[in-house]
Amino acid sequence: MSVERILDPRLRDRIVSAEQAAAFIQPGETVAMSGFTGSGYPKAVPLALAQRIEQVHEQGLPFQIKLLTGASTAPELDGALAKADGIAMRMPFQSDPDARKRINEGKLDYIDIHLSHVAQHVWFGFYGDIDTAVIEVSAIREDGALVPSTSVGNNKTWLDLAKKVIIEVNEWQPEGIEGMHDIYYGTALPPHRKPIPLIHANDRIGQTTLNVDPDKIVAVVRTNGPDRNSPFKPIDDESKLIAGHLIEFFKHEIGKGRLPPNLLPLQSGVGNIPNAVLAGLAESGLRGLTSFTEVIQDGMLDLLKSGVLEYASCTGFALSPEANETFKRDIAFYRERIIMRTQEISNHPELVRRLGCIGMNGMLEVDLYGNVNSTHVMGSRIMNGIGGSGDFTRNGFLSTFLSPSTAKNGAISSIVPMVSHVDHTEHDVAIIVTEQGLADLRGLPPRARARVVIDNCAHPDFRDQLNDYFDRACRDSYGKHTPHLLPEALSWHQRYIDTGSMKA
Amino acid sequence: MSVERILDPRLRDRIVSAEQAAAFIQPGETVAMSGFTGSGYPKAVPLALAQRIEQVHEQGLPFQIKLLTGASTAPELDGALAKADGIAMRMPFQSDPDARKRINEGKLDYIDIHLSHVAQHVWFGFYGDIDTAVIEVSAIREDGALVPSTSVGNNKTWLDLAKKVIIEVNEWQPEGIEGMHDIYYGTALPPHRKPIPLIHANDRIGQTTLNVDPDKIVAVVRTNGPDRNSPFKPIDDESKLIAGHLIEFFKHEIGKGRLPPNLLPLQSGVGNIPNAVLAGLAESGLRGLTSFTEVIQDGMLDLLKSGVLEYASCTGFALSPEANETFKRDIAFYRERIIMRTQEISNHPELVRRLGCIGMNGMLEVDLYGNVNSTHVMGSRIMNGIGGSGDFTRNGFLSTFLSPSTAKNGAISSIVPMVSHVDHTEHDVAIIVTEQGLADLRGLPPRARARVVIDNCAHPDFRDQLNDYFDRACRDSYGKHTPHLLPEALSWHQRYIDTGSMKA
Repeated sequence: MSVERILDPRLRDRIVSAEQAAAFIQPGETVAMSGFTGSGYPKAVPLALAQRIEQVHEQGLPFQIKLLTGASTAPELDGALAKADGIAMRMPFQSDPDARKRINEGKLDYIDIHLSHVAQHVWFGFYGDIDTAVIEVSAIREDGALVPSTSVGNNKTWLDLAKKVIIEVNEWQPEGIEGMHDIYYGTALPPHRKPIPLIHANDRIGQTTLNVDPDKIVAVVRTNGPDRNSPFKPIDDESKLIAGHLIEFFKHEIGKGRLPPNLLPLQSGVGNIPNAVLAGLAESGLRGLTSFTEVIQDGMLDLLKSGVLEYASCTGFALSPEANETFKRDIAFYRERIIMRTQEISNHPELVRRLGCIGMNGMLEVDLYGNVNSTHVMGSRIMNGIGGSGDFTRNGFLSTFLSPSTAKNGAISSIVPMVSHVDHTEHDVAIIVTEQGLADLRGLPPRARARVVIDNCAHPDFRDQLNDYFDRACRDSYGKHTPHLLPEALSWHQRYIDTGSMKA
Repeated sequence: MSVERILDPRLRDRIVSAEQAAAFIQPGETVAMSGFTGSGYPKAVPLALAQRIEQVHEQGLPFQIKLLTGASTAPELDGALAKADGIAMRMPFQSDPDARKRINEGKLDYIDIHLSHVAQHVWFGFYGDIDTAVIEVSAIREDGALVPSTSVGNNKTWLDLAKKVIIEVNEWQPEGIEGMHDIYYGTALPPHRKPIPLIHANDRIGQTTLNVDPDKIVAVVRTNGPDRNSPFKPIDDESKLIAGHLIEFFKHEIGKGRLPPNLLPLQSGVGNIPNAVLAGLAESGLRGLTSFTEVIQDGMLDLLKSGVLEYASCTGFALSPEANETFKRDIAFYRERIIMRTQEISNHPELVRRLGCIGMNGMLEVDLYGNVNSTHVMGSRIMNGIGGSGDFTRNGFLSTFLSPSTAKNGAISSIVPMVSHVDHTEHDVAIIVTEQGLADLRGLPPRARARVVIDNCAHPDFRDQLNDYFDRACRDSYGKHTPHLLPEALSWHQRYIDTGSMKA
């Protein structure tokens, strides 16, 4: 392995092994790492840290850290540290199965906040000091500036605030990624904030590299490993139907003059259904699309390649192994069409509102009145987290939520009388889409929303049950504004817990 | 009554009676009126319209309108039209008891949305055409420009979009109010939006008058009547305790360096508790305070008078009759220290985030995990509405929610296992204050939040019951991230409905 990616001569004598680097991290530290939806996370130091933690635990001694990131990472980071019982607190979004298991057993404290809040809340001092930052980059320039890799996330904040810094230089990341990033250094704490001078999703307002005080760098580790993401599933019929309903709605809104012919900047959550929507857009006949989003996944690369999507702004990637190779091979093409930003900018309320983003996010369940649960299975078990959905839902032009109408082979209805946890309130939800159809909740009072959600989105297996609840609630509810029968409102969830099915 | 407030000669021949003006409004119309928290609403035309509607109803014919405003109004508007069964749909925030009764009987459709969303959602076309605007002003200038009165609300949007316009010129409003307003005409629809050039809460970015196409004005009505608001209650011990806890917390945060010595721009909800907080701030020793809020109420005038508050930005007033007189008498003083804006600016996410506002809002109830219900009594009956609380809660520096720990003489606990409706999610709530104490939820995972909410905020009468629920939930919940016992989660509310008390 060469050191040609480490051009700053001052840092070459700090090159150490991952084990030596991990030794800088002490029990009880708050450690802030890079990584956003499985891209750009450190590949070696977290594994070495997990091993060290296990060794310390074997001696009967405590060793846990508080772990902050951009968003979800990968088995080498969240997985390894969770398995080692090395995480006392985790913030924000994560999706690792081992960490999730511990969170839901009550053994790992998880703080799930809006992604646009993370950097500023740490700057505000709400999470105390950052002891160590562990950041993957693709190269270090001669002047010490860091060339980011496949995610930016909160790296600017972590590098600015951490007392000591460990850098991983990953040679697997394409050299040609340099120039793709736009790091905005104009943020400030109130009362010193200024307008953010971004007017189009592809405006450049910053610099291509990350600054860091070289005196804070205690270790540089060379790595050569891929970002790990699961392949997407082949697009199934259900996802195709959902995508079709949404795209038909977009065309309807264009026809009515409520959306421009090239829509407005798209935000797309990660997963198989959003990927199906992107595939559907490729064949929609729409042109000149743009994206201002958190994450670029396979379907968006295809949209860029076909010219349907003109450009995209993001803070990270979630690519299948195949798409990763395409991305690396055609990096010169993508570098002209993709801008990677810090997540405080990619998700910033000011910019989401100004650009008028169209939010497209998944959900676990929605209730009759349009309240959406994105995070909690049966009200108490976390699935992943809210991520950036709230940033786009509240502040964008239009919020859409996409889900099959049932889960677990039909045992769970995604449309319920009352959601068991609320992440997006009735005040924030405009459009619900299932394979059954689309419910347009804009400008509707609560009872009218219930009618259209049941009729357009619920699975036929649950429609009678929903109508029965709603009819009786309209008759017997304490108030008739948002009719509910409280003893029954959450009974579907309890029935699932008791019997394995929500069916009556 | 003179016509000296109507200087545009073109409009003098359109001066008519309120009855004649109301005759321009047809059944089924969408009518957009001025008015925000009982200030600046039209005083005569809505009453005349209500009479006309009653006459039509007596003939057995239908007559209802869809009614949009800035926020709540007064008995002469919401009350009269609701009593006449003249409102088919009402949007947004309202607080009239007659309207509320009909809403909760299921006879009046109410759409409760964030106040920052109203103007843009109407511009987006989500509410169809605006047929008629009925707007109170304090004067019409020679060039036809309108001098607003004691609220701005959505008046700019209503005047821009309405097909026909009825103006009420209210001579009761002080002439000296001219110059107090700042109407920003730089808004646009996406993708044409630009940064809003406001950096300090007292920046002027617009003009002092409202534009209107004179050809759209079908009627001008002269009025001379006061804004009607209830007097505030004398500050009680409970409110004083709540104010004391919050101000102590502010001082603690200043001491820790997390807040500047003059805090950050304050947003204050309307009511007796916020008024007590303002009174507390007057005696706090803090100086150089600023406010970027929706509504100015009595306490804020006092703070300006004493010099504790340097300036305030708002979109309307909620003053007691006495404070109204003070305001009119000392208008020259207040005009230099108060700026009145459109509500899309007073509540704009971009500005609330940039300025770093401190939100102070009331609530009906909060649950163990920090979810707040601001609107629904026992989950189904609307109280008032969400107003602008969400605009400040989500996007500001800090969100605080204030309430006595019990209601209805102790029968209702404001701290419940699970709220019966969610307006502000766990992701958006930082500080809870009751007369018992303050819970700082920042940086806490769900179970730790429960501990501090129970210990610091719950009334002693309900503490054992809450601990019992929480302990059993931690033991028996399906998931242990956000422990809940679903069959019991809403049982306190049902017990209140059944027995008149939440006590077990």
